[in-house]
Amino acid sequence: MDKKQDSARELYDQVKEMMDNNKFIELRETLDEYHTMDIYDVLQDLDEVDRLKLFEILPLESAASILEECESEFFQNIVANIDREHLRNIFEEMSMGDLADILRELDEGSREKILDIVSKEDEEELRELLAYVDETSGSTMKKGYVSVNKNLNVEQAIKHIRAEALDADSIYYIYVVDNLQKLVGVLSLRDLFLSSDNSKIEDIMVENVKSVGDNDDREEAVKMVSKYNLVAVPVTDEEGVLKGIITVDDILDVMEEEASEDMYKFAGSSEHERDVAENEKSTLKEQVLSCVRGRISWLLLTAILSFVTAFFFTKFKVIVDDSHIALIFFAPLVLAMGGSVGIQSSAVTIINLLDNEKDVDYQTFMKELISSLINAFVIVVISSIILYFVTQNAQIITAISLTVFINMVLGATFGTLIPIVVNRLESDPSVITSPIISAIMDIIGVIVYYIIISIFIL
Amino acid sequence: MDKKQDSARELYDQVKEMMDNNKFIELRETLDEYHTMDIYDVLQDLDEVDRLKLFEILPLESAASILEECESEFFQNIVANIDREHLRNIFEEMSMGDLADILRELDEGSREKILDIVSKEDEEELRELLAYVDETSGSTMKKGYVSVNKNLNVEQAIKHIRAEALDADSIYYIYVVDNLQKLVGVLSLRDLFLSSDNSKIEDIMVENVKSVGDNDDREEAVKMVSKYNLVAVPVTDEEGVLKGIITVDDILDVMEEEASEDMYKFAGSSEHERDVAENEKSTLKEQVLSCVRGRISWLLLTAILSFVTAFFFTKFKVIVDDSHIALIFFAPLVLAMGGSVGIQSSAVTIINLLDNEKDVDYQTFMKELISSLINAFVIVVISSIILYFVTQNAQIITAISLTVFINMVLGATFGTLIPIVVNRLESDPSVITSPIISAIMDIIGVIVYYIIISIFIL
Repeated sequence: MDKKQDSARELYDQVKEMMDNNKFIELRETLDEYHTMDIYDVLQDLDEVDRLKLFEILPLESAASILEECESEFFQNIVANIDREHLRNIFEEMSMGDLADILRELDEGSREKILDIVSKEDEEELRELLAYVDETSGSTMKKGYVSVNKNLNVEQAIKHIRAEALDADSIYYIYVVDNLQKLVGVLSLRDLFLSSDNSKIEDIMVENVKSVGDNDDREEAVKMVSKYNLVAVPVTDEEGVLKGIITVDDILDVMEEEASEDMYKFAGSSEHERDVAENEKSTLKEQVLSCVRGRISWLLLTAILSFVTAFFFTKFKVIVDDSHIALIFFAPLVLAMGGSVGIQSSAVTIINLLDNEKDVDYQTFMKELISSLINAFVIVVISSIILYFVTQNAQIITAISLTVFINMVLGATFGTLIPIVVNRLESDPSVITSPIISAIMDIIGVIVYYIIISIFIL
Repeated sequence: MDKKQDSARELYDQVKEMMDNNKFIELRETLDEYHTMDIYDVLQDLDEVDRLKLFEILPLESAASILEECESEFFQNIVANIDREHLRNIFEEMSMGDLADILRELDEGSREKILDIVSKEDEEELRELLAYVDETSGSTMKKGYVSVNKNLNVEQAIKHIRAEALDADSIYYIYVVDNLQKLVGVLSLRDLFLSSDNSKIEDIMVENVKSVGDNDDREEAVKMVSKYNLVAVPVTDEEGVLKGIITVDDILDVMEEEASEDMYKFAGSSEHERDVAENEKSTLKEQVLSCVRGRISWLLLTAILSFVTAFFFTKFKVIVDDSHIALIFFAPLVLAMGGSVGIQSSAVTIINLLDNEKDVDYQTFMKELISSLINAFVIVVISSIILYFVTQNAQIITAISLTVFINMVLGATFGTLIPIVVNRLESDPSVITSPIISAIMDIIGVIVYYIIISIFIL
């Protein structure tokens, strides 16, 4: 156990020492025992000269795995400095699905340069993958699946798989296709193992195979893998022809990306800031720029909405006389309560809408509304007691308590309705952020306060 | 494709019709073609009588898969109504890891009842799993792995695996153990396929096998699976003895749970509310109660902090004369800006702290600070222009602009520091919620505003 914990630093020191002493044979032997992702960690820590030297002596297969998983900056640095012929051999070993993912992040020029290096066949495959819209299943899939024709028997199929497995990354499932390459069934290796050699594939396969369309959102694939506990899901085109697979490690990547994305957005920032923040190589300047770009528009909108709040607040001058001046100073309390409930309700509604598995329906709305009534009642009782010690003026206590109550209930109402309406109009509720909800609730809150004061004090 | 989309409703109608007409043989044949999770959907929609009738005629293996994946309420309903002998046969087919997960959710009494039904051997395994602390790797692992002794050759190993595979859910990796059952290596089925029959396992295995400790947090397993693109990670005890595996579908479940958890917490609600909300069977009453319980304490704390804000705000009476009364009405703007930046910075910091992969270090703090300086500058320039149209009083414009600037920078400072400090003290930054950050920033904001006004106006 301990060995593993320290292995990152230990490996780096070992590698550095061997490189400095030109012990390259020993180095290759050492690296053989490590996972490529551990070697990638070392490569990232080395300076550029050593990094290129080490990368060049890696076995093609390891170099390919690293390029499949690396950050685009690392990729560009390697590609710009490694011999073209060597690079072509590495690309030959790579999953075109992963290579396409990296190419997506590069500019047109760099992309074409890479497409120029790879073999004709790989270029075709890459262009096919790159043609898919970003975040569709087609753009996420890879080609390394194992398929067999439904007319083979078990013995023939095993022979076929043993040959094909050389190219496939891992064998997840064995997909069964007809003569037109249409997906008609699925088999596990285990099913194959446990069947007699002369059974026909068609007779032992499971016909009801779960698949996603190549133009479907990749979220469909996430849901399917998660619901049916799959390790891979096949992707088919409109005719049902098998085009690729999305494996569970791609699904994990998608889930990781989308998990923190929602919270960044809700806090009033952007996907882009998250991407830059999670890239360990990004400079402070890049981070600051992404941060400013991601947040400034939300802050501006908040500022403008706050001016509206201030405008309505100014009107209090006219209706509040000196004996009720306390009403003005309790405005932050009155506004904060509506804003807090608004943020809670909108966060919950947005999560439900994004989950999509169930519609945010009447029951969710009722739940938010009833809960806010109960919460508002509790808060108002406690606030009234505290207020009684601050001011004995019954009018003031009534006006504040009533406004807090109404604002909390309106917070739940608007916090639920705003994301639902935006979702209907834009089909993306995550444009609603907590600063905006809180600024909108400030405006509503100050207007409610004004009305209540007009009624109870004048 | 279309067939699949409508299949849920279609299957339900089909099943219902066959059950009403007692066509049970036909029913079993139909169900044979569907995934157990689709059958589970139908079971959930049926009334209790039909549900039990249908569950009883399911093949043992399907019934077991359904119980492995179902909600604890469904589980209890089935267990309470199905014949004990039949139940024992179903449990016999279940993964004890999944059964243990469900038992964890039941009360002591129901748990013991189940432990009484299962075989002696399974009971022992269940008690071993239940002994682990919740959310450790040991509590998440299952037993269905395939292992071979390092001293076998390929032919012997394949024979052994073909026999053992009958019990294992799926073959992910083949783990290699020594005579003391200590984990010493790993093999893929593919490695085995491609090796000659008389190679020794020890010679073809990969020695550097990634594993997690049984008492480690299950997050360790998530990180390992995600970093190294694994479909399963072995769990070992302190001596290095192989105890179980955590498979990628467990990892997906963990990730799904934790993803929405963070946002619920940040919005000022609780894990428990999320669990209830995501359980489709929970009643409106249960939902409202969980919602009130999850949120009321945050709302109370917000209310109390807002009283503190109001208290400081009252002091403005003394320092603001009638000609500067506008200063009071711009308080919501001044406070909203500090609160918004505070929420943004704290959300980003909490995500980074939870990710844990990199410490929230000096660079993150600097990034938040510098960005807030830039954002504050932009907002202040624009606000000053708007303010100029509202009031030509230079003192007022200066006081408001300066306070907005300072509050935004303090929002970034405290938004970053509060989660970091809480994390150091409590090791869980997610106790910081957006309503609290915004209420704390209100207090700080109003004090800053007071000081600025004292300096510039008096």
